[in-house]
Amino acid sequence: MFRFAIKLAAGVTALVAITVASAQAYEPLVEKQVFEIPSFQTFGGNEIKNVQVGWEAYGRLNESKSNVILICHYFSGNSHAAGKYSANDKAPGYWNKIIGSGKPIDTDKYYVISVDTLVNLGVGNPKVTTTGPASINPDTGKPYGMSFPIVTIRDFVNVQKTLLDSLGIKKLHAVTGASMGALQTYEWAAAYPDRVKRVIPVIGSGWATGDLIAWLNIWAAPIKLDPNWNEGNYYDGPPPLKGLATALKIVTLHAQNPEWSNGSFGRSWAKDSGDPAKSFDNLFKIEATLDAIASDRAVTSDANHFLYLAKAAQLFYAGHGKTVYEGLLAINAPVLMVHTNEDLIFPGDDVRETASIIKSDGTRVNIVELQGTRGHLDGVFSISQAGAAIAEFLDN
Amino acid sequence: MFRFAIKLAAGVTALVAITVASAQAYEPLVEKQVFEIPSFQTFGGNEIKNVQVGWEAYGRLNESKSNVILICHYFSGNSHAAGKYSANDKAPGYWNKIIGSGKPIDTDKYYVISVDTLVNLGVGNPKVTTTGPASINPDTGKPYGMSFPIVTIRDFVNVQKTLLDSLGIKKLHAVTGASMGALQTYEWAAAYPDRVKRVIPVIGSGWATGDLIAWLNIWAAPIKLDPNWNEGNYYDGPPPLKGLATALKIVTLHAQNPEWSNGSFGRSWAKDSGDPAKSFDNLFKIEATLDAIASDRAVTSDANHFLYLAKAAQLFYAGHGKTVYEGLLAINAPVLMVHTNEDLIFPGDDVRETASIIKSDGTRVNIVELQGTRGHLDGVFSISQAGAAIAEFLDN
Repeated sequence: MFRFAIKLAAGVTALVAITVASAQAYEPLVEKQVFEIPSFQTFGGNEIKNVQVGWEAYGRLNESKSNVILICHYFSGNSHAAGKYSANDKAPGYWNKIIGSGKPIDTDKYYVISVDTLVNLGVGNPKVTTTGPASINPDTGKPYGMSFPIVTIRDFVNVQKTLLDSLGIKKLHAVTGASMGALQTYEWAAAYPDRVKRVIPVIGSGWATGDLIAWLNIWAAPIKLDPNWNEGNYYDGPPPLKGLATALKIVTLHAQNPEWSNGSFGRSWAKDSGDPAKSFDNLFKIEATLDAIASDRAVTSDANHFLYLAKAAQLFYAGHGKTVYEGLLAINAPVLMVHTNEDLIFPGDDVRETASIIKSDGTRVNIVELQGTRGHLDGVFSISQAGAAIAEFLDN
Repeated sequence: MFRFAIKLAAGVTALVAITVASAQAYEPLVEKQVFEIPSFQTFGGNEIKNVQVGWEAYGRLNESKSNVILICHYFSGNSHAAGKYSANDKAPGYWNKIIGSGKPIDTDKYYVISVDTLVNLGVGNPKVTTTGPASINPDTGKPYGMSFPIVTIRDFVNVQKTLLDSLGIKKLHAVTGASMGALQTYEWAAAYPDRVKRVIPVIGSGWATGDLIAWLNIWAAPIKLDPNWNEGNYYDGPPPLKGLATALKIVTLHAQNPEWSNGSFGRSWAKDSGDPAKSFDNLFKIEATLDAIASDRAVTSDANHFLYLAKAAQLFYAGHGKTVYEGLLAINAPVLMVHTNEDLIFPGDDVRETASIIKSDGTRVNIVELQGTRGHLDGVFSISQAGAAIAEFLDN
């Protein structure tokens, strides 16, 4: 009520000033840092020189370096999981609801760290630092394009591990992440079971199923249709923005649930005067909305990086061992799984099957089921529902 | 057993001959016919000259012309619902399991008729006759391309009605169809309630929801990315086969259910020596399978026709009246709905909501739920499960 009154009296500026003052009292601004690896060996056996990734952290590392929680990010995300870089930022990091002082992932207790992946999508986002097809290959002085080595979820984990090693952090109090972040979470626990004390995969399963492999193929397909893609060689010309926007449009819809498209849009037209029956240019509101979201995201994204991320996700199965079971059975740390049955990308059945395998040898697994109307995205929008369970899991 | 013994002894030819002889004993070969409408007025108020559509029929029209069952076809289908054109046909029409002598839609009792839609996808299929963007505009002597009028499900129905009128058929014993065929079924019952005595919509709901509108947008999007599409002007050059194949790939996967992709393919590679981790050219088996299906279907399909079909489906709500309720409430004939809860295109919730509206004013509605692993496609593959219910519904 107080903020509302101020807004009415003195306008938006006053409101922002007051909100910021309040936030600054207990949440310091976030600083993006860059970590470099002069020579990185991929899981597939290739060398990548001069790897650079962005990272950020919230809270303080304790003396024994035992209070570290690693947050792994999703497909189209980056390491900005919480807080603001500047008082003027429109929005904080994506999981700000559960990361911060006094929140479930409590920065008064934990040192929370997050790292941009290799081949991160947000090449055009000034806050993202990543290495991938859009990077300059030091051997040629030109962008890698599709000559960049194929990378896996294990490689994302190994970059994080190299950073943690450099900081002297030997064990993680917990590792967590949503969607592709859940894949990294499983991978950490399966590949490095001795370094992970708690595992919190959110909206993700222990391997890419045949169905997910097929959908990832479909996500990626429009990029290759765009003539500007040119087999990945577009860095000296116009990028394949239309193909990339179509790819992002598919992801955006697939990550929702019909309750969103039906409930928020239904059969509404984009423009009152633009009957979709009259012209192919007249869209329904849901179409125009998806186009706008996707075009906006395409501007700061890179098409080749999208293809590499889709490939990494297709190749994923926890531990990358002989079978999909091996890695999941290697997990020893207790697991708290968070998911929703309305998820079209990682359906509830796959999450439950993952849980069954992990706990088949006695590993403790608990599951929190989110309720909501946003499908997969409830792993971000409705994550607060799992807050109490996460807080308790971290404390025990 | 008899057939099997013959096969072992005398090979495939003998087997085929015997099968055919057996089939010919009670199922006559199907003949495709062509119906012409010199001037067709679309629901949107445009004239289309020289409309031609293919149609076929099974069984005999009785003297009172009261034994007619109309079968409306799905998005990528055509009027070949049952039987074979030639003894050498590899497969019969798509609903052959339930249409024929002694089958649920019994051609000993009923005259079963099916009509190719306007803007039918299968322009390159020699057995399909349709009128759409690929047709020659008599006013210009050139293909319409995207200048063809936008058409609706009502127009598909009105073409069928014109054919029935020409045959002197005033009432339908029943109208049925799967998927887009269900939309035509609802439209018949809503727009012409006095001409329909029984309504059997299969795997479809009473309107295109916001979610379906969005997915249809995504189905269509790859076509426009293909530079060969050229705003629809490709009839004197190479067609946009890659864009069309990608569109068909999306439809193919969306019409399935994860049980298919996971159960039949899982994480198998397309080639034993082609580890997908080694190259972007090395695919998983599910990817290669979808590509093969889609490329094969693209050859006989037309990209502009795809766009018009997607538009017609987006525009659909039963009756095309003032609200989505109006048309469904106009339905008076008893309704037998067939669907599956594993359907991603027409989810069970939408089918049940449609049923609730129709029966809210006392109209009789029964629902048969199919069980299977093929999602939407179980409306074709598993239709036999509804056979007894359909037979009983038709007899009463």
